[in-house]
Amino acid sequence: MKSQSTIIVRYAETDQMGIVHHSVYPVWYEAARTEFIKKLGITYTQMEQLGILLPVAEVTCRYFFPAHYEDELTVTVSVKNMTPARIEFAYVVTKPGRAKPINTGTTLHAFAGTDLRPMNMKKKFPELYRKIEAAYLEET
Amino acid sequence: MKSQSTIIVRYAETDQMGIVHHSVYPVWYEAARTEFIKKLGITYTQMEQLGILLPVAEVTCRYFFPAHYEDELTVTVSVKNMTPARIEFAYVVTKPGRAKPINTGTTLHAFAGTDLRPMNMKKKFPELYRKIEAAYLEET
Amino acid sequence: MKSQSTIIVRYAETDQMGIVHHSVYPVWYEAARTEFIKKLGITYTQMEQLGILLPVAEVTCRYFFPAHYEDELTVTVSVKNMTPARIEFAYVVTKPGRAKPINTGTTLHAFAGTDLRPMNMKKKFPELYRKIEAAYLEET
Amino acid sequence: MKSQSTIIVRYAETDQMGIVHHSVYPVWYEAARTEFIKKLGITYTQMEQLGILLPVAEVTCRYFFPAHYEDELTVTVSVKNMTPARIEFAYVVTKPGRAKPINTGTTLHAFAGTDLRPMNMKKKFPELYRKIEAAYLEET
Repeated sequence: MKSQSTIIVRYAETDQMGIVHHSVYPVWYEAARTEFIKKLGITYTQMEQLGILLPVAEVTCRYFFPAHYEDELTVTVSVKNMTPARIEFAYVVTKPGRAKPINTGTTLHAFAGTDLRPMNMKKKFPELYRKIEAAYLEET
Repeated sequence: MKSQSTIIVRYAETDQMGIVHHSVYPVWYEAARTEFIKKLGITYTQMEQLGILLPVAEVTCRYFFPAHYEDELTVTVSVKNMTPARIEFAYVVTKPGRAKPINTGTTLHAFAGTDLRPMNMKKKFPELYRKIEAAYLEET
Repeated sequence: MKSQSTIIVRYAETDQMGIVHHSVYPVWYEAARTEFIKKLGITYTQMEQLGILLPVAEVTCRYFFPAHYEDELTVTVSVKNMTPARIEFAYVVTKPGRAKPINTGTTLHAFAGTDLRPMNMKKKFPELYRKIEAAYLEET
Repeated sequence: MKSQSTIIVRYAETDQMGIVHHSVYPVWYEAARTEFIKKLGITYTQMEQLGILLPVAEVTCRYFFPAHYEDELTVTVSVKNMTPARIEFAYVVTKPGRAKPINTGTTLHAFAGTDLRPMNMKKKFPELYRKIEAAYLEET
């Protein structure tokens, strides 16, 4: 499954170079990830209430072309990789009028309990694990 | 008591106008407030561990002169007003080479428990209340 | 004229109190203001290209009820006051299932040139001034 | 050359997981980079005034242990790689009481003119290039 989210660039997200600050893209990734999970039929809020946290273990972010205030961007998110202990998402950011992505990135997350310790998601939440896995396998 | 904190402006805090974005000042107020409380001999982290939260009920912020990247600013914080239910802090931001403040503001906070409900700070934590009150009265 | 914008709360906008950090609301005000101006038939990006900046002179923000991650909020923005030198916007933030606003605020802006110095908007850009004024008077 | 910067975690930098949000680390990297450049005898502000921008082409960020509100962290920055067109910085974030880094990362930057187009830094600013290169070679 691929999920697409629309982001309209906020003024506060720009910096004195006149473009979006690079630290903002992971925030957009997260907003797109939130929508992705919602499309699976569960919200990330509900996952946290069940005791599932997804702390970030790694972020990569490549910038090909700047984004500007009021740009209407599309963030496409998919599951790149998945094990009972970890899940990796991939992101592609595009801008109307440009065929190529302006930014791509990944985030790697641990499946963790409320104590932030790793857990075996497949064992503890088999049904939800399979649901996410199905979305992942759909891609490959 | 008045407490002074030094803030060096971060690039990410600027916007495409070439100045610090107005939403950043309350974040600086908070950093200065953290230092203020530390000077009372308790940390805000410890206060939260004791079950005392200070959710913000009101912010005012007046901008007289812009701040720029790498500026070394001083934020002076004091208690402006205080009751068993609420505390108000006042902030003055200055910049080397300018006699007048570049920004002033206030934040009004409820004394609340971990459920975010208001509590009578004076009754529940009389010792800490008196300590903060002393810092307040020192001013007036 | 009143303009309504939808905001979905981002994870990055929460703090360790489990609610949206108070410094985020002015960022939402700005996003809503951007949409307001767009509905007037000009974008704020175009205004800046014409040489009109709206630096913030004052922000007030009152918090009545917390906002949480994934909340779908509505920010209603209107012009509260307007002179050839200054414009003030008012904001009301609401949340589904709550009749009363969870937050209200104002932002006061100077009409300024690219050098950030004040200008007489009515004289320099009479047509655009009248357009904004019409949106203002519609309210009162 | 290695440069060390102290960061005190701000409340606004935490999220509802009770730890620092992952998008904040690149902002700290930038603050540490600012100090690094200052130690070379030029400020990044001056570099921008000379017409040298350092737009970010790539960020990587690995999280090993969470940071918390009021933590006093050290960010160590060094030049990892450098060509006339590009410069890469490496960052190590440590926390008192923990021998191992809690976070490591890199940022890759283009040397660009004010139009954000790539330039040959070595040709256009040979003296400054050599100064940065010296700091780089000192490491290896």
